[in-house]
Amino acid sequence: MLKYLVCAIVVGAKNGVSSKYTNQQGSYDYDLIVIGGGSAGLACAKEAVLNGARVACLDYVKPTPTLGTKWGVGGTCVNVGCIPKKLMHQASLLGEAVHEAAAYGWNVDDKIKPDWNKLVQSVQNHIKSVNWVTRVDLRDKKVEYINGLGSFVDSHTLVAKLKSGDRTITAQTFVIAVGGRPRYPDIPGAVEHGITSDDLFSLDREPGKTLVVGAGYIGLECAGFLKGLGYEPTVMVRSIVLRGFDQQMAELVASSMEERGIPFLRKSVPLSVEKQDDGKLLVKYKNTETGEEAEDVFDTVLWAIGRKGLVDDLNLPNAGVTVQKDKIPVDSQEATNVANIYAVGDIIYGKPELTPVAVLAGRLLARRLYGGSTQRMDYNDVATTVFTPLEYACVGLSEEDAVKQYGADEVEVFHGYYKPTEFFIPQKSVRYCYLKAVAERHGDQRVYGLHYLGPVAGEVIQGFAAALKSGLTINTLINTVGIHPTTAEEFTRLTITKRSGLDPTPASCCS
Amino acid sequence: MLKYLVCAIVVGAKNGVSSKYTNQQGSYDYDLIVIGGGSAGLACAKEAVLNGARVACLDYVKPTPTLGTKWGVGGTCVNVGCIPKKLMHQASLLGEAVHEAAAYGWNVDDKIKPDWNKLVQSVQNHIKSVNWVTRVDLRDKKVEYINGLGSFVDSHTLVAKLKSGDRTITAQTFVIAVGGRPRYPDIPGAVEHGITSDDLFSLDREPGKTLVVGAGYIGLECAGFLKGLGYEPTVMVRSIVLRGFDQQMAELVASSMEERGIPFLRKSVPLSVEKQDDGKLLVKYKNTETGEEAEDVFDTVLWAIGRKGLVDDLNLPNAGVTVQKDKIPVDSQEATNVANIYAVGDIIYGKPELTPVAVLAGRLLARRLYGGSTQRMDYNDVATTVFTPLEYACVGLSEEDAVKQYGADEVEVFHGYYKPTEFFIPQKSVRYCYLKAVAERHGDQRVYGLHYLGPVAGEVIQGFAAALKSGLTINTLINTVGIHPTTAEEFTRLTITKRSGLDPTPASCCS
Repeated sequence: MLKYLVCAIVVGAKNGVSSKYTNQQGSYDYDLIVIGGGSAGLACAKEAVLNGARVACLDYVKPTPTLGTKWGVGGTCVNVGCIPKKLMHQASLLGEAVHEAAAYGWNVDDKIKPDWNKLVQSVQNHIKSVNWVTRVDLRDKKVEYINGLGSFVDSHTLVAKLKSGDRTITAQTFVIAVGGRPRYPDIPGAVEHGITSDDLFSLDREPGKTLVVGAGYIGLECAGFLKGLGYEPTVMVRSIVLRGFDQQMAELVASSMEERGIPFLRKSVPLSVEKQDDGKLLVKYKNTETGEEAEDVFDTVLWAIGRKGLVDDLNLPNAGVTVQKDKIPVDSQEATNVANIYAVGDIIYGKPELTPVAVLAGRLLARRLYGGSTQRMDYNDVATTVFTPLEYACVGLSEEDAVKQYGADEVEVFHGYYKPTEFFIPQKSVRYCYLKAVAERHGDQRVYGLHYLGPVAGEVIQGFAAALKSGLTINTLINTVGIHPTTAEEFTRLTITKRSGLDPTPASCCS
Repeated sequence: MLKYLVCAIVVGAKNGVSSKYTNQQGSYDYDLIVIGGGSAGLACAKEAVLNGARVACLDYVKPTPTLGTKWGVGGTCVNVGCIPKKLMHQASLLGEAVHEAAAYGWNVDDKIKPDWNKLVQSVQNHIKSVNWVTRVDLRDKKVEYINGLGSFVDSHTLVAKLKSGDRTITAQTFVIAVGGRPRYPDIPGAVEHGITSDDLFSLDREPGKTLVVGAGYIGLECAGFLKGLGYEPTVMVRSIVLRGFDQQMAELVASSMEERGIPFLRKSVPLSVEKQDDGKLLVKYKNTETGEEAEDVFDTVLWAIGRKGLVDDLNLPNAGVTVQKDKIPVDSQEATNVANIYAVGDIIYGKPELTPVAVLAGRLLARRLYGGSTQRMDYNDVATTVFTPLEYACVGLSEEDAVKQYGADEVEVFHGYYKPTEFFIPQKSVRYCYLKAVAERHGDQRVYGLHYLGPVAGEVIQGFAAALKSGLTINTLINTVGIHPTTAEEFTRLTITKRSGLDPTPASCCS
């Protein structure tokens, strides 16, 4: 740790870019070229420089097909992902808070309306400031930033398409960190009339009545804050909600959203989008079970059906890099099938698409490449949060995965409903405030997974993620003294097992 | 665990109170009398019944000296502690949220005022509902509830002073869980004109300009929500802020409150309180360092100078129980010096005065007494939160205690300032958003303590408390993948040591 920091000072003090590594053939422009200036790429590039490598980082954003939305350095998270999403979620929660404030006695008129344009402007201003800080940070850390689209010529050579023309650059090592972009469905009108999360956070008009197609976390989060902001989202679900997440929790999330007045069109797929004379969008869709067709009119159609890895422009065949379903398979060292080419972040195949995963994997890769480290990225037990109006956070195994892995007889699930103290006065629904611990049934009762649906879920689960990584058991969990009154303390009160069949609703408050 | 739950059903099914234990002499009215119906007493009483004991629980609240405030079953936490405090804190935060909502684009008029009486009514209604649930819970669980003040005759005999007269009752075992009440200073006018937290949450008038005397967590929390509600608190500090807490964090809490416009009168003690003709309170006070005297006029004077254990009415000498500074010393089994008399909760000497500590200690005691358990209460590494406007939560050792215990050379402190994403748009001050990890310097770098100043601190720290109990190390902490964007993830980004002298302010956001 300290070594790393001291190292940072030395590099800074030199006030210039130089390499302490000799290129293998002595003839490459850079030790490392990182393709992609998102969370993974930037973290990797900065850490590589800190460890003495000479690094360039390419970043380029293709405009969205219809609205032409584009953005600055920083990648999905900063520009069209976590950051604007969390801010709009927060705006939505603050609208709720105004109503709650009235219940607590504030003389506030709670017949309030949002100002979409002001919100978008505020969100975009914040993003611009982060773009700026990111650029300054890269300059300070001596990472050469190249605003160009990279395309392989061979495994050591890249052509960067710049505004000023093509530039050929070489490096001993490449890290591909180009990330992904939202998919469009292959139906008439999808591209012309639909938008994605790439457009939503800078949309220059109110979204209004919005069809959100897709019930992954992006779809649900967008539908959630749109509802909170007073618009009318509908969620269209092809098969299941929150695929990959614990399905009991996923259905509770969906139910909590339905309770707030967000309709879910289940087992449905869109067939076409047409623009009517009044400018509204006519969406025809089909129930995949009954085959029944239906249609409805929306102001906005938002595709949230998944994301595609940005392999197409890389000319990977020139470098010999293998691709699998628009992603790049890597080994436990994040190495591709080509010796000097690595990949990190959302572009890699079969790993969680999450900013902190990308950051840590990128940083660890750089330390292995240039810092003599051998530490690999641990992709297990990564905590995550779905920022729906009632938030869902989890770490470790879902109940079904635990059962699949260990067998139903060897898994114990402790669960409970709870009532956040703050919910009483504004009479907020506590119906979906629920949490569970999935654990080993016998032995030490090691905790396999924790799941929490309720307020500030991410803040609640983060520490438990560290606990899981430290070998948390049920015995430790229920002997951890709670912090009263919080909702996080409910984890320390989990004593009812699903197997017992006992009522998991709470009785007393403070004894 | 399961045994305990099945047991609950059996007792319920019997539909009557009976004991599976034979009293030693066969002649006691009860196996166990618990004196005090607060968190500790209720938890202990209920658990004892679940384990087959015949239990009575005495509860009695003496009215406050001047306003005559009193309350129902449940003890300090429910009636005049955590619950009303958290609700008023929440009301205060919601006032802030209204201003933030305007910044996020909601067309809300943020020139808002609180309605103190409506707030008090809402808070009291909630408390009444908890009192009611508590009574129902006791009835369901077959704990005999006696609304009377208990006083020992001998070590097996108590006189309960009831409305209907005195009643003498006997038990084989006693658990003293009478808790404490706020102290008044011994100065003219203190009792006649001052109030305490026992009165504040049901006060029938706006507090207005309030002198909060005492800078423990109760004083700071009250001052914090009063300011948030638009009143004018001043905090008078005799010696240090938040005694017993990490003093760097304590001073940051104080500074964050000063930044919000709460004056702190340092090194000051009150001399007298006089009521003026206009009904306002003239407080004379003295600087303990300079000896200088000063005075100011307030609408309300709130004593928050500490709490006193309620030993006086118990007639403990009759039972032979030793007292130390208004508290009862106990051993690691919560046993007093008298074989059949135990104590739990705030009344015991030298342990944290916290609801969940009381609950768990009470429950574990009952299991040892009647359930064959040998598990003792672990009073170490108890997490707690100070619900000031910017909340402070911690678990484990303070920096100074770690240094005292292990020596400065053997302690490493990792620290950092951070900027919550949600703070940018409303331009909230991030000046005091700070956290640190106090750890072993060498070896595994086991974490001794974690400290966090920021939003929803209790929710953030709870999971880390479970992690500490699971043996958290710095290596595990910084290799725990963050949840982005949260503030809790900042713990996973703690890489700068105090020893390095490096700047602990953050640079990048998401890479």
